[in-house]
Amino acid sequence: MDDTSKAPGRAAEHVDESRLWQRHMDMARLGATPKGGVRRLALDDNDNKARALLVEWGKPRGFTAALDPIGNLFIRRSGSEATAAPVLSGSHTDTQPSGGRFDGIYGVLAAFEALEAIDAAGIVTRRPIEAAVWTCEEGGARFPTGTMGSSAFAGHRSLDLALADEDGAGTTVAEALKSTRSALPGVAERPLGFEVAAFVEAHIEQGPILEAEGKTIGIVTGIQGARRFRIEIDGEDGHAGTMPHRKRRDALKAAVSMIHALEALFDDPNDVVRFTIGRLVIKPDAPAVIPGHAMFTIDFRHPEEKVLARLGDQVAGICAANRRGCEVKVVEYSNTKPILFSGLVPDAIGRAARRQGLSHMAIHSGAGHDAMHLFHVAPTGMIFVPCWRGISHNETEDAKSADLAAGARVLAEVLVDLANR
Amino acid sequence: MDDTSKAPGRAAEHVDESRLWQRHMDMARLGATPKGGVRRLALDDNDNKARALLVEWGKPRGFTAALDPIGNLFIRRSGSEATAAPVLSGSHTDTQPSGGRFDGIYGVLAAFEALEAIDAAGIVTRRPIEAAVWTCEEGGARFPTGTMGSSAFAGHRSLDLALADEDGAGTTVAEALKSTRSALPGVAERPLGFEVAAFVEAHIEQGPILEAEGKTIGIVTGIQGARRFRIEIDGEDGHAGTMPHRKRRDALKAAVSMIHALEALFDDPNDVVRFTIGRLVIKPDAPAVIPGHAMFTIDFRHPEEKVLARLGDQVAGICAANRRGCEVKVVEYSNTKPILFSGLVPDAIGRAARRQGLSHMAIHSGAGHDAMHLFHVAPTGMIFVPCWRGISHNETEDAKSADLAAGARVLAEVLVDLANR
Repeated sequence: MDDTSKAPGRAAEHVDESRLWQRHMDMARLGATPKGGVRRLALDDNDNKARALLVEWGKPRGFTAALDPIGNLFIRRSGSEATAAPVLSGSHTDTQPSGGRFDGIYGVLAAFEALEAIDAAGIVTRRPIEAAVWTCEEGGARFPTGTMGSSAFAGHRSLDLALADEDGAGTTVAEALKSTRSALPGVAERPLGFEVAAFVEAHIEQGPILEAEGKTIGIVTGIQGARRFRIEIDGEDGHAGTMPHRKRRDALKAAVSMIHALEALFDDPNDVVRFTIGRLVIKPDAPAVIPGHAMFTIDFRHPEEKVLARLGDQVAGICAANRRGCEVKVVEYSNTKPILFSGLVPDAIGRAARRQGLSHMAIHSGAGHDAMHLFHVAPTGMIFVPCWRGISHNETEDAKSADLAAGARVLAEVLVDLANR
Repeated sequence: MDDTSKAPGRAAEHVDESRLWQRHMDMARLGATPKGGVRRLALDDNDNKARALLVEWGKPRGFTAALDPIGNLFIRRSGSEATAAPVLSGSHTDTQPSGGRFDGIYGVLAAFEALEAIDAAGIVTRRPIEAAVWTCEEGGARFPTGTMGSSAFAGHRSLDLALADEDGAGTTVAEALKSTRSALPGVAERPLGFEVAAFVEAHIEQGPILEAEGKTIGIVTGIQGARRFRIEIDGEDGHAGTMPHRKRRDALKAAVSMIHALEALFDDPNDVVRFTIGRLVIKPDAPAVIPGHAMFTIDFRHPEEKVLARLGDQVAGICAANRRGCEVKVVEYSNTKPILFSGLVPDAIGRAARRQGLSHMAIHSGAGHDAMHLFHVAPTGMIFVPCWRGISHNETEDAKSADLAAGARVLAEVLVDLANR
């Protein structure tokens, strides 16, 4: 490896911190919210514009662009061996409904910055390197299923199922993709799924650990698993002033009992368990009407498969025991196994961080990422950079320009390293 | 009174059960829901059409119509003394978002049926009798404030405040009333508030008591008081997978703790207290985001003022004690004192029910009604008829045609009685 060590180092020198920051600000205008956040839902006009902007930025460098059938976009810098499997790096451009300026888009812009830096350094890699935008990473923000593009790419979810997903207004992914394609004239079509030499995803941590530990680079050791449930409760609407309590079948009362019992189950003195009720909707939602219907979601995550099984398997029973005369249906709509990263990619990240003299640490990912799916396709790893107070999925999400650039420098070096193997 | 007893009896004989039922079905088409209920929100197109229909039905009988500045509609049958204060009877045409076919509209149609029956019997009363439609009885269904028309009529809430109320789309009552007026061409304008000789409101019980006791007529003895609160909770949005629980400020968690504690406070082994959370909305309402905001409403009712004070005054303290790191704001947006009906009107109802040989009982109203406000303007009372299983504010709300007609017969007799005093 010593014989390639100089070339990757040169790429890092060409990472341009102010250009990288400016591009984050340019992207943040697409779906900007009054409170300084971003609402750029998967395949909406702003998400399409974000893709188009990347394609435009790549043109002066001669980077080529291609779109696959689920809307994943690839910006490619050629290598010396035209048929060699590419090294991929990227993340997503879509956000939560009240999202921030860095989640997802950082991984895309860091990959693009790395391509530019490698190009500016005049480095010729053996393999092509591609910056990837994976479609609809944020589940439940517009379409119900998250990591839509990467899971279809990896063959974990069928393309037909993904294309049939509907948003709240009844628009399917297939329909939405028509406008995405028209927003990208001249971009080549590419079949779904292809051989990948390695995948690296850069991302803000979305948690408070790197900041608290004073480290710039997180070498991600794995992603915790997640089980997601939707609980539907049916009782009976009734008049708030007249219906005796002994005759009520109040769906919200049942939901509150269930949530109270679930909180006791998922309580963890070590604060490793992540248990969140992110949605709760009642109907008819009028002050003088006993709610006859309630729906809530559970997002439960843990790094260990046996804990995911032990606690998650109790959800249905606890809901049934607390239904208070209502009917309850518990649907587990997503179950993602924990993942461990090791070997090629994390090792390359560690080497680059050390050589660049950046403070670094091993860290586990609390959030799910597209890398969960690419992990099953190719050697995979992730680079984390600190985010302010660990706050993410929030309009106040923030990160330091210097940290973002440091992550891009590590990424550039790692990509050259991997693309020459 | 014996000298007038024959005339009122004759009016009851002209109540037409099938006509009354058909008119309920005609009205139920205006805003019909797929599940057989009605969604006719205050001053919407269907509510305007309901008013227009009443005006049309009155024309062949020579009944005149007038609209006041808050949209209350009066259909008048003249008396022998043109300047005598009228006897009023009526209720409302608006419904809850998922309402039924009888709540409110029964009181309007029973009053109209009584006018027709009195007219068909050729009875000349001293005072005019008017069927009244009070605007927007159902608070929170479209506009925030309930009994809007009757409270403005009685001077309990200023007309300006009522006209400035906004629906969820930002349309004010003043704006909505423009379309109501255009839907009623030729209907006279009338100033807000005037002298009323007496007021009678017929209504389905909206509770299970008459049905359980096997009685046809409820002579209403009073209306329980109600206190309504809106609780706003502000925490912080966060990522469901990464944010440690010890750092979370989860607004839904806080809401669940508050509701759990409030349920314990309002628990009543005698089942007299009515405590309902009818609305609960969280934001941003996405499965993978810790909700940073929650809002819920409390509807608390009781027949005794001292219980309303003792329990209601503890709401703010319990919410503060269970805020779990969030900020909480408790607003009491409505406070209605309990009311007792006695004397003139309930006595007349009792006499009519006895003379017609109808089973009857004294009953307290769990629901609020426009009669709460008219009570402060004139001698007032209410007639209840049974409703199926006590279910109301629900699309399955139902009532028996024979019971509806029995209530209208009692009402016709009571109105003649009161209009000759």
